[in-house]
Amino acid sequence: MKEIGIGLLGFGTVGAGVVRGLQENGDVLAARLGVKPVLRGIADIDIKTDRGVSIDPAILTTDAGLVIDNPNIQIVIELIGGTSVAKDFIVRALERGKPVVTANKALLAGHGERIFGLACEKNVDIYFGASVGGGIPIVRALREGLIGNRIKSIIGILNGTCNYILTRMEQEHLHFEDVLQAAQAEGYAEADPSLDIDGLDTAHKATILASLAYGTMLPLDSVYVEGIRGISDADIEYAHDCGYRIKLLAVIKYRDDKSRSIDVRVHPALVPLHHVLASVSGAYNAVMVRGDLSGDTLYYGRGAGREPTARAVIGDVADVVRNLVGNSPCRVPPIPAFGSKVSLCSMEDVETRYYLRLLLHDSPGVFARIASVLGAHGISIASILQKEGRVGEYVPIVIVTHNAFERDLNAALAEIGSMNVVGAETVRIRIQE
Amino acid sequence: MKEIGIGLLGFGTVGAGVVRGLQENGDVLAARLGVKPVLRGIADIDIKTDRGVSIDPAILTTDAGLVIDNPNIQIVIELIGGTSVAKDFIVRALERGKPVVTANKALLAGHGERIFGLACEKNVDIYFGASVGGGIPIVRALREGLIGNRIKSIIGILNGTCNYILTRMEQEHLHFEDVLQAAQAEGYAEADPSLDIDGLDTAHKATILASLAYGTMLPLDSVYVEGIRGISDADIEYAHDCGYRIKLLAVIKYRDDKSRSIDVRVHPALVPLHHVLASVSGAYNAVMVRGDLSGDTLYYGRGAGREPTARAVIGDVADVVRNLVGNSPCRVPPIPAFGSKVSLCSMEDVETRYYLRLLLHDSPGVFARIASVLGAHGISIASILQKEGRVGEYVPIVIVTHNAFERDLNAALAEIGSMNVVGAETVRIRIQE
Repeated sequence: MKEIGIGLLGFGTVGAGVVRGLQENGDVLAARLGVKPVLRGIADIDIKTDRGVSIDPAILTTDAGLVIDNPNIQIVIELIGGTSVAKDFIVRALERGKPVVTANKALLAGHGERIFGLACEKNVDIYFGASVGGGIPIVRALREGLIGNRIKSIIGILNGTCNYILTRMEQEHLHFEDVLQAAQAEGYAEADPSLDIDGLDTAHKATILASLAYGTMLPLDSVYVEGIRGISDADIEYAHDCGYRIKLLAVIKYRDDKSRSIDVRVHPALVPLHHVLASVSGAYNAVMVRGDLSGDTLYYGRGAGREPTARAVIGDVADVVRNLVGNSPCRVPPIPAFGSKVSLCSMEDVETRYYLRLLLHDSPGVFARIASVLGAHGISIASILQKEGRVGEYVPIVIVTHNAFERDLNAALAEIGSMNVVGAETVRIRIQE
Repeated sequence: MKEIGIGLLGFGTVGAGVVRGLQENGDVLAARLGVKPVLRGIADIDIKTDRGVSIDPAILTTDAGLVIDNPNIQIVIELIGGTSVAKDFIVRALERGKPVVTANKALLAGHGERIFGLACEKNVDIYFGASVGGGIPIVRALREGLIGNRIKSIIGILNGTCNYILTRMEQEHLHFEDVLQAAQAEGYAEADPSLDIDGLDTAHKATILASLAYGTMLPLDSVYVEGIRGISDADIEYAHDCGYRIKLLAVIKYRDDKSRSIDVRVHPALVPLHHVLASVSGAYNAVMVRGDLSGDTLYYGRGAGREPTARAVIGDVADVVRNLVGNSPCRVPPIPAFGSKVSLCSMEDVETRYYLRLLLHDSPGVFARIASVLGAHGISIASILQKEGRVGEYVPIVIVTHNAFERDLNAALAEIGSMNVVGAETVRIRIQE
């Protein structure tokens, strides 16, 4: 059987998973492809540590250039991560006409335009199915399966760490900090968890998904990002009482009006308990895509981890192998065209419902004053929840609003914040129906 | 821009959806593909009825042969359905070297081996993403995205009519017959609903999914099929009390033991309430795939209907267009190889947990006799539920068992059925954890 040489840059957890996957499922993969992918080079700065997979030491090197330039290697897998050397190596591979498979979301979110442009210029494939959603073929769905659609919205739970933390907070009635520490001890959260819990990882992925849907790389810093540090167990409980569950969401929405704009944002949101996204618990990810023809489709699975990510990488390798065998590189462009230019909608123009938790002085007429501030800003109240119990002289009150503009809500909250009957900063969480 | 001619056989609901989809999204599709798919022929026995889409009457014909043989048509879409003329037309197109896109699950489930064999022999594409799951790209996932995996199991809610009926029975505490009639009135069920509610439609789809996962077309009559006619509102309620929801499932499982066999079955099953599949309500479909690398991934969306099915057809057309443009027909074989032969496991060898509802005479020692029959057949009881209330001299009792073999359960139920303390046939529903 004909062979195709594979080179791997980055021999970490996922890299070892790819090696093992190619070893264990190499036979079924070869049977399905008609050619045999053979690993011919692995580069990493650390080539000593045992990764629990047996490989020929002769293919190990600390020099990535040797792997990229090896004439017996036709496909380069980049699993180094980060935006420095990984970028140089990908550029080098593409410039030499070698297709690249990568899981590097930070790099694509920050430098996608350059990398995708180079791939198109050189007529070389770049596949990145593992960059979003790990085991979930969401990149493939947007790049291929759904291309007959205009995408109206994408709503995703894209960070397993955050979803794990929120799930445990709800199920075990725990505080954020306690669950975070437990998650770190169990390996569900990094020692420095900020990339995950402050939402940047989700923003990287949202940028990539938005680009796939709307045909243009969006600047990462145009994405509104808010993480889950501010979520308290009280909010989780109140949300539940109101029929919602709190999830960290990436929200991408196309406004089918004259503006032709999209909004891309990452923030915690209340999701109705009966919504499928509400049933996504633990370290799982899910993405709901609304297309004009397909309606709602949802993709669910493990969003990270060695095996699921390796699955995505190997699936991409299979595609690249087919394109090489069929001599049809760039069969699918890195990012599907959208046909027209979309602009980004500012966060102030976003319209949504809100959950507000206020701490108000327990005296007559206070609530009426709050309600009149909201009303003056055009914000209409859908429901109010006040339970028995006081915090000193104050009582917590939860308000769920009808649709309102972020601009108006901000103005109302600023006004409310300056009132002397308010005992603490008002908590504001958006609602995603 | 270069054009590619499309011919459509069958101008029904889905056919009209494809026409509309190609019209409305033709620009974005052309931008994404670099060539423009143009509809050049539509054949149907009825070319008079207005389908609500405007087309050039000159492309309408009652003679499918004219469409298939038209030298300006490069791709044939078959949406006639059924196993008679549709088969002849597909065979004719493939024999003339024209790629085919079809949604015909009954045909593929019954004659897939012949049709796929012909496509391979002629080196012509056949795509059938719309045959299972409508808007859900599950065929694509199994054919392409997951090919680096060995599939361990596929569990699916594949019939929207059944899921709609079961959802309404549960939510509104209604009887099966009443919901069925309402569903028929609303267009959610056919006038002759047997194909859906007796499970055959699900079996067609299960056969196709099993074939995709295990590389060989399975005989349709080897699939165990049980529909939802026997599901009572009482069972739905008892199931809920035990922490489960009843769904009609397709279950495909690979036994990773010496037997290398799979079991493929369609039957109602109790799914734990916290399971994602339990949250799939109404006319939606969902498929959970367990791969050795990917872990569990789930695909969810509208399983039928004009737009979602049209989306799947157009997505397949896009693939075929790319293969034609890149001159790489059969880039992906109709069914991925599995590398080794799998055999079918008999229903008697299936091992699962069971929900049993018995009607027992309300007298001392009766339950002990039932329990001892179960015990004698190696069936262990996990939980028992008896509520207040009698039916004449009888009381209903629900038993949930631990894992047991179908063979042993059948023998135990036969024995129980012959006991004079049993007031009605015992209801047996399998449990899918």
